Amino acid sequence: MADMFEPKLDANGLLTAVVTHAQTGAPLMVAHMNAQAIAKTRETGRAHFWSRSRQSLWLKGETSGHFLNVTEILVDCDQDCLWLKALPEGPACHTGAASCFYRRLTPEGLEPA
Amino acid sequence: MADMFEPKLDANGLLTAVVTHAQTGAPLMVAHMNAQAIAKTRETGRAHFWSRSRQSLWLKGETSGHFLNVTEILVDCDQDCLWLKALPEGPACHTGAASCFYRRLTPEGLEPA
Repeated sequence: MADMFEPKLDANGLLTAVVTHAQTGAPLMVAHMNAQAIAKTRETGRAHFWSRSRQSLWLKGETSGHFLNVTEILVDCDQDCLWLKALPEGPACHTGAASCFYRRLTPEGLEPA
Repeated sequence: MADMFEPKLDANGLLTAVVTHAQTGAPLMVAHMNAQAIAKTRETGRAHFWSRSRQSLWLKGETSGHFLNVTEILVDCDQDCLWLKALPEGPACHTGAASCFYRRLTPEGLEPA
């Protein structure tokens, strides 16, 4: 019998979702999901998030075509975070970078990762 | 010249920190950092977080000995999330699991990852 999935949403009804590349393990992006985004991601296999700036459901790639095709969803110990492994169709970052994490923090500041 | 590091903290003075294994890329944990946790992590090379439940600075491994030795810190596009690559001294999860993400979400519920 499987454990129950009972996601622990915060006061805004959200949890954190981390996305890594399903084949390389590379960091891609971090965003937020509400219950609807979780349900749509599970149903469709494409990552959906909740846009806090637009306050609306956000199918990643809806306008850019850069969908994230989810191959696996991991759940953390206290069920307040999901980890998506995904195959990206194009850059994951809105800047056009493959990953949102394209800079490294050094003692001097930021440099290209 | 390096870009400026200007972390964007939320209303509670926090940002999300994701940790993966520096060698394998495996998911380890997700937690939160405030400005002090960020500074201590950079100074010491050991991951520090802000414990929201205890409302205090938290040196990961302080009581368990399971420190996270940080090899690299990546910063995302809008500087509201840090990605730590780390070599863990022992399990990263308080449950004793190597990773907090030890379960996979299936259509039926949760199963061991």
